[in-house]
Amino acid sequence: MIDQIAAIVGPKNVLTGADAAPYGEDITGMWQATPAAVARPASTQEVSDLIKLANTLRLPVIPVGGRSGLTRGGIGDGVLILSFERMAAIREIRPEARIAVVEAGAILSDIHDAAEAQNLVFPLTFGAKGSARVGGFLGTNAGGSNVLRYGNTRDLVLGIEAVLPDGQIVDLMSGLHKNNSGYDLRHLLIGSEGTLGVITAATLKLMPKPGAYATAMIGMAKLSDALPLLNEVQKATGGLVEAFEYMPDKFVGDYVRLNPAHKLPFDDRHPVNILIEIGALSPRDCEPGEDGQIPIVAYLEDILGQYLEDGRIDDAIVARNEAQRREMWARREAAAEVATLHPFRVTNDVAVPLDLVETFLARSDAAMQRVDPGSDTSVVAHLGDGNVHYTVWPTVNDAQLKDAIMEAVEDIVIDLGGSFSAEHGVGEAKLSSMARRKDPAALAAMRAIKAALDPLNLMNPGKVLPPIEG
Amino acid sequence: MIDQIAAIVGPKNVLTGADAAPYGEDITGMWQATPAAVARPASTQEVSDLIKLANTLRLPVIPVGGRSGLTRGGIGDGVLILSFERMAAIREIRPEARIAVVEAGAILSDIHDAAEAQNLVFPLTFGAKGSARVGGFLGTNAGGSNVLRYGNTRDLVLGIEAVLPDGQIVDLMSGLHKNNSGYDLRHLLIGSEGTLGVITAATLKLMPKPGAYATAMIGMAKLSDALPLLNEVQKATGGLVEAFEYMPDKFVGDYVRLNPAHKLPFDDRHPVNILIEIGALSPRDCEPGEDGQIPIVAYLEDILGQYLEDGRIDDAIVARNEAQRREMWARREAAAEVATLHPFRVTNDVAVPLDLVETFLARSDAAMQRVDPGSDTSVVAHLGDGNVHYTVWPTVNDAQLKDAIMEAVEDIVIDLGGSFSAEHGVGEAKLSSMARRKDPAALAAMRAIKAALDPLNLMNPGKVLPPIEG
Repeated sequence: MIDQIAAIVGPKNVLTGADAAPYGEDITGMWQATPAAVARPASTQEVSDLIKLANTLRLPVIPVGGRSGLTRGGIGDGVLILSFERMAAIREIRPEARIAVVEAGAILSDIHDAAEAQNLVFPLTFGAKGSARVGGFLGTNAGGSNVLRYGNTRDLVLGIEAVLPDGQIVDLMSGLHKNNSGYDLRHLLIGSEGTLGVITAATLKLMPKPGAYATAMIGMAKLSDALPLLNEVQKATGGLVEAFEYMPDKFVGDYVRLNPAHKLPFDDRHPVNILIEIGALSPRDCEPGEDGQIPIVAYLEDILGQYLEDGRIDDAIVARNEAQRREMWARREAAAEVATLHPFRVTNDVAVPLDLVETFLARSDAAMQRVDPGSDTSVVAHLGDGNVHYTVWPTVNDAQLKDAIMEAVEDIVIDLGGSFSAEHGVGEAKLSSMARRKDPAALAAMRAIKAALDPLNLMNPGKVLPPIEG
Repeated sequence: MIDQIAAIVGPKNVLTGADAAPYGEDITGMWQATPAAVARPASTQEVSDLIKLANTLRLPVIPVGGRSGLTRGGIGDGVLILSFERMAAIREIRPEARIAVVEAGAILSDIHDAAEAQNLVFPLTFGAKGSARVGGFLGTNAGGSNVLRYGNTRDLVLGIEAVLPDGQIVDLMSGLHKNNSGYDLRHLLIGSEGTLGVITAATLKLMPKPGAYATAMIGMAKLSDALPLLNEVQKATGGLVEAFEYMPDKFVGDYVRLNPAHKLPFDDRHPVNILIEIGALSPRDCEPGEDGQIPIVAYLEDILGQYLEDGRIDDAIVARNEAQRREMWARREAAAEVATLHPFRVTNDVAVPLDLVETFLARSDAAMQRVDPGSDTSVVAHLGDGNVHYTVWPTVNDAQLKDAIMEAVEDIVIDLGGSFSAEHGVGEAKLSSMARRKDPAALAAMRAIKAALDPLNLMNPGKVLPPIEG
C-alpha cells in the first residue's frame, strides 16, 4: 500500500508511524486516532490517482487542511489522510473580476494578504485564520465574525474543483455570477466535510477593501440593550457594520488569565463587552476631513458619546490606530484558546434568532446547574448572527454527562427555533445531535445522496451522517 | 385516476380536457403539450398526498407556478401538473428578523408589496414579476436585474419546505443565518427545476428598503466605455449600484415598434443605452438637503454632468420622479415581449466575464451571418453581471438550424470562459447544450443524485439532465 501511494506522490510525501502520528491528534486535545498513512499530493491529478487507489484498496480517505476543526471531523483510525500542505498556491488574483483562484491547501491569512495587496478583501475571518486552509473552511462552510455583512463561506465561493469518490475530477471553477446549468454540486460539496468528495481548488469572491474601519469596544450592563444599538448603527451607516461580537465579563477575565501580558478592555469591569467594527467604502466616509479626522471614525465616536451621555452604555473606546484595533480583535479571536483553560469541555456552537440570545443564555445557565451542578461555562457570541459559542466545562470528564449537557442545550435551542450546529460543522462530535434533531426525511435524503455518490463509503466515513438506529 | 386526485384536492381542483389545455401551452408560443390532468393543492399535505399517489400510479409530475419560464421546463405530455395558485399566501413578514415566510404559489410582486409595507425589499426582480411564483423562481434559481448587488435567488433564501419524490415532507424552513447541519438540501433543490422534489414554501431574506433611488438613462457610443463608468460609480458610492442594464439602439427601437405609445429614451439615437440605478441607505444620502435635492440624486446628476462635459457619454437623463423611473424600467422589462415580435426564435441566455461582453456580441453577430445569413437579433444584457440575452430570429423555423445557432453561440461563450445557461435554467430547451458542454463527471454525479432521490423518474422527467447517449 505504501509503495502504491509513494508511486503517486513520491516516497518523501508518504508518512507512516511516528511521522503520521500528529495527523491522528486533534486540536481540541480531546480525541485521538491512528491513521494508516498520510499522503501529501501536489496536484489535483495526484488526488484523483490517490482516490482511485483508495477505491481499489477499499481504504477510507480523510482530506485535511489546517486541522483546526472543532468537531472531530479530520481524524480516523486506519485511514489514508490526504494533507494539502503542498497544494497551497494562490494561483491568481484577478482584481478587475474581483476573484481569487486558490488551491485547497491555501491558508486563509495568506489569501487575506494577497487580496489586500490588490486593495481587496476576502472577508471570511475567524480565530484560526493563520492555519485554516481552503479545503477545510469550504468543507465545513465556516462562518466567523464577518458573516453579518458578507455571509458564510458558501456565499463567498463562485466555483470549485473537486475529486469525486470514484476519482473523477469535476471542474466547476466558474468565475461567473450567473450560471444555472444543472444541480448545484458546488453547494452540495461545500459543507459536506469531505464525505462526498475532496475539494481541490476554488474560485473565491473578493470584495472592495473598506477605505476606513471604525472599531470600538463597548461596555454595558444588559445584553438586551445591545441589539437595538446594532440596529441603530446599521440604519445610520446604511448597513456598514462588519462585526458585532459579544464577550461576557467572565470571558475577558479568562482571556487575561490565559494571557497575563494582555489587558482588560476597560478599567472597570462590565457584564457585557461588545466589539463593533464598521467598514466604510465611500470616499465621503473614508477620506480625512480638514480636522484630520476620518469621518466614519468621528461618526462612531459621536454616536457612542451620545449613548454614554444618555446612559445607554457605560463605557466605550474607539480604536485610534491599527495596533489598538488588532488588540481588540486578538481578544475576541482567542476564544478557542480560552476554551482550553479546562482540559475537557462540551463545545456548543448554536444559533438562535437574534433577539433570543439573552433568553438562550439564561435558560442554558439554569439548565447546566441542573444537569451538572458546579460546571462552568465559557461564552462568546457573534451577536449579529445569533451565533453563540456556549462552551461548558463539566465537573467530570464523562461521555454520558457530556452528551446530557449537549442534549440539554439542544432542547433550549430547538425550543427557540434555533440550530444545534451553526458554523463548525458536524464531524463526529455532533452525530448524536444530528440523530436527535435533524428532520428525518432530510436525513434520509442525505443518506441516499451519500450512497449514490460514495457507494463504498470511503470518503470520511462515519462523519456528518449518524448511523441508522436499530 | 381523476377520482383519486379529486379525493385529495376536491373535485373543483382537478382540471382535465379543455380546462387543463392552457397548462399545456408555453408562454414562448413555441411549444405545446397535453397534460393528463391538473391538480391545484391547497396545502403541503395535499402536495405530499398527490406525490404519493403519483408514485402508486407511476404518473409523472410537473410543478408549475406563473408559467413564465423560457426553457420549456413546465409542460409535458400525459403528466400530472401541480399548480400552486391556491398556495399563494405570504404567511408572515417578520420585519425585525428581516424575513418573509411564503408559500410556493406566492407571486413575486405581491412579496415586493408586502415587504415594502414594512419598509423592506425583497430585491429579486425581473420582467415577469407580476406572474412568477416562489416555486418557479426558486426552482430555476432566477436571476434578474438586481443580482449585481443582492445575488441570485439562491442567495436570498434562508430556508425551504419541500416534498421529496417519495412524498415525504422536508422542513428546512430555518430563518437562521448560520446553520451547518449536514448537506445543503436547500441549495440542491433550488435550481433543480422540479426534478428532485417540489418546493412548497420558503423563508426569504428581506433587505432594508433604500431611502432613495437615483435612476438614469445614459446614451453613449461604445459599449467598452460602459464598464469603467460602472466601476467608477461603484467606487464613489461604496457599491450602491443596484442595476446596470444595457439596451442597444435596435432594442429601444423595437420596443417602440411593439408599444407605439411609448417613447424612445432620448431625442437622439445612441448605439448604447444604459439604465443605471443606485439605491442609497444612509440618511446622509437620502434626506433632502436645504435645496430640496436628494443627495444621492444630486450626486448622480453631478457625475453624469461631468462625464457629458468630458465627452465620455453623449446623453443622460436622471429620473425626476417615480413615474419617470418606472418608465425607464418598463422599457427594460419588456425584453421578453420584444422577443415575440418574431414568431420563432432562439433564446440564448449566456454569461461571460464582464469585460468580454462586447467581444461576445461582435463574434456572435459575425457567427450568425455565417450560420444563418439574413437572421436578425434582439439583445439586452444585465451588463453588471456579464449576462447577455442574445435572442436570434432565424430566417426559417427549422429545428436543426436553431440548434446550429445555439451551438455557434455556445462555442463563443465557452471560448470566452462563460456559461451557456446563466439565469433561465435548462428545462428541455437547453438539453443539447448540457450534453455538449457540461463537465461529464458533473453530469454523472447529477444523474446519480437524480436516480437516488427519484428512482422512478417521476419528477419533471426529461428536464435538466440530457438522456445518456448511445
